[in-house]
Amino acid sequence: MTRFADLQSLRAACLDLPSGNDAAAAAVATRQAELTKPPGSLGRLEELAAWLARWQGRAMPALNSVAVLVFAGNHGVTAQGVSPYPASVTAQMVANFARGGAAINQLAKVAGASLRVVPLALDRPTADFTQAPAMTEAEFLEAVATGHDAVPRDADLICLGEMGIGNTTAAAAVAAALFGGGGLRWAGRGTGIDDEGLKRKRQAIDAGLALHAARLANPLAAAMALGGRELAAILGATLAARRLRIPVLLDGFICTAAAAPLARVIAGALDHAVLAHVSAEDGHRALAEVLGLKPLFDLGMRLGEGSAAALAVPLLRAALACHSGMATFAEAAVDNRE
Amino acid sequence: MTRFADLQSLRAACLDLPSGNDAAAAAVATRQAELTKPPGSLGRLEELAAWLARWQGRAMPALNSVAVLVFAGNHGVTAQGVSPYPASVTAQMVANFARGGAAINQLAKVAGASLRVVPLALDRPTADFTQAPAMTEAEFLEAVATGHDAVPRDADLICLGEMGIGNTTAAAAVAAALFGGGGLRWAGRGTGIDDEGLKRKRQAIDAGLALHAARLANPLAAAMALGGRELAAILGATLAARRLRIPVLLDGFICTAAAAPLARVIAGALDHAVLAHVSAEDGHRALAEVLGLKPLFDLGMRLGEGSAAALAVPLLRAALACHSGMATFAEAAVDNRE
Repeated sequence: MTRFADLQSLRAACLDLPSGNDAAAAAVATRQAELTKPPGSLGRLEELAAWLARWQGRAMPALNSVAVLVFAGNHGVTAQGVSPYPASVTAQMVANFARGGAAINQLAKVAGASLRVVPLALDRPTADFTQAPAMTEAEFLEAVATGHDAVPRDADLICLGEMGIGNTTAAAAVAAALFGGGGLRWAGRGTGIDDEGLKRKRQAIDAGLALHAARLANPLAAAMALGGRELAAILGATLAARRLRIPVLLDGFICTAAAAPLARVIAGALDHAVLAHVSAEDGHRALAEVLGLKPLFDLGMRLGEGSAAALAVPLLRAALACHSGMATFAEAAVDNRE
Repeated sequence: MTRFADLQSLRAACLDLPSGNDAAAAAVATRQAELTKPPGSLGRLEELAAWLARWQGRAMPALNSVAVLVFAGNHGVTAQGVSPYPASVTAQMVANFARGGAAINQLAKVAGASLRVVPLALDRPTADFTQAPAMTEAEFLEAVATGHDAVPRDADLICLGEMGIGNTTAAAAVAAALFGGGGLRWAGRGTGIDDEGLKRKRQAIDAGLALHAARLANPLAAAMALGGRELAAILGATLAARRLRIPVLLDGFICTAAAAPLARVIAGALDHAVLAHVSAEDGHRALAEVLGLKPLFDLGMRLGEGSAAALAVPLLRAALACHSGMATFAEAAVDNRE
C-alpha cells in the first residue's frame, strides 16, 4: 500500500518522474514512413502509435490489457444547490455500475477493457468547501494513495473516469485555483443545472476561492481544499501510471481538472496522458488548451464515468493495427513518390 | 444488374428517394431520455443511435453486417502532373488491398466489417478533363451502376472509400463545379504535392471548369465531365443505399465530392449519410460545411481508402451498445432530477 506522509512527500514524488522511451517512438516514426500510404496521411493515428510506443517502451506497442478505472466520491458542496440531482445518485450509480447498467459498462465492453469502480468513502462526503477545506490532509492523501494503488502494474493502458454528484463544481474550483479566473470562467451546467443553479454554482466556487486563497499557490493544497476524493484518486492514478510508464487516457472536465495539479507541480507531468475528448461542459475546452492537451473527440458528450476515454480505445487499437499490420512499400511492391 | 439508360433516367432515380422512419428515431429519443445518464449527455452517440434507427427502420438498430466498399479508378488528368505518385500506384494498391497490406485492411478488421474492393477499368483511365470530358455518358453510367450494384442488400451499414492516383484533382473540380470557386478554393495537396504541383493542379481544375462550363449546371453532367469512375461508383452506391434505406458512412474529401451531386439534384439526398471525418485535405472542411455534413472526427487524416469511415464504426457500435445495453432510471432504481 502506497503511503504519502504529507503533501511535501507527495510533491517530491511528483517531481521525480521517469521519461518516455524516445528510441521506441523514433522507431515508430521510421516504420510509419515506410508503410504503404502517403507520409503522415494517418494523422493522429500515427502520433498515437508513437505515443503508445514511447510509454510502453517498445517499437511495437500492444493493447492486450486495458483497464478502465472509475473513482466515485461525494461532495459537501452539494449543500449549495449546485446539481439538479440528489447526492444519493452517486451511490446509486455505483450500484448501477456493479450491475452493468451504466454507459461505461457498455463502452468498456466495446473497448475490450476491464472495468473497476472504486467508491471512496461515499458515506463521508467531503466538507462543503465554501465553509472549510474539502478534505483534511490525511483524507486527501488517503484518496491519492487509493488511486495510486488501483493502477494494475501490468496494464498496457489505463482509462480514467469518475462519478460524483457535485464534482463539476469541485473541478471548476480546482481549475480556477490553478489557472486563475473564478466561477464565471470555469463553471458549466454539469448534469444540467438551470440558470439559478448555475449562479449558485459560480458563487460557491468564488466563495471557496476566497476562503482558501492563502493556500491555493500550492497546486496539491488546492486539490485538497477544493477538490474531492475521486479527483484526488485520479491524480494518484495518473501519477502511478507515469511512474510505471503506463499510457493514460483522460476523460472529460473533471478528470482533466483532477490531473491538472500534476502539470502545475512540474511541466510535462501529463506527457504520458492523452485527452480522449473535449466535453460539452463549459470550461473544458479552455482547460484542455491551457494544459496543451489536444482532444481526440469533440462529440458533445458530457457524461463522465470514463465514457469518452473508453470510446477512444478502439481508435488506439486501429492506430496499432495499422502500425503493425500494414505492408511497407518494399513488401507490397508499390511505387513510392516520383 | 442496374441500368440507367441516360443521365435523365439517373436523375429521375435521384429524385425518387424514400424517407427514413421517423417513428423509429422518435422511439430512440424516448428511450435515451430514460437511460441512467443526464439527458443528452452522450451527445452525438445519441444522435447516431437515432440516425441508425431512422434508416434501419427499427427502434433497436444493429450492426451485424457492416460492409466497407472501396472503389478504384485511374485518371487521365495525372498527365498534368497533379500527383507526386505515378498512376501505376492505383493498381498496385488494389493488389495491396487484395493481400491485406493496406490501412483499410487493418481498419476494416478493427471495425468488424467486410471489405470489398472494386477496381473500375484501371487499364482505361478517364480522359484528361482539361482536354475532353473525363467520361462518356455510357462510361459514367456504367460506373454508377457498378457502384449501385455493389451495395449488399442485407447490409446494416456501408462504409464508402476510394483509391485513385489523381482523384483529389477530380474531386476538387467536381466540388468547384457544384459550389462555385475554382482551383484556388478547392485544390489541396492530396498525397503530398509540392508548391509547383499544387499550382499545376489548380490550373488543371480551372482549365477543366472552363472547357466544360456549358454543361456544369447539371450536377450529374459535372460528375461525368470532371469526376472519375470511382467517384461515379460512390455516387451509385450512395444512391442504392438510400433506395434500400441502408445508412452510409462517407469517408473523406473525394468520397464527399463524389456523393455531393446527389445533394445538388435534390435536397436531403444525403440524409442517410454521416460524414466520418473532416480530412486534412484543403477544401474538405468547406465542402462538408456547404453540404451541412458534421464530421465525427478531426484527426488530421487524409488517406482515403474508406479509412476514416471504417474508423468510425466502433463509435457507432458504442452508440448502440449504450442504447440497447444501459439500464433505465426505473430499472436501476436511480433517483432522477429533483
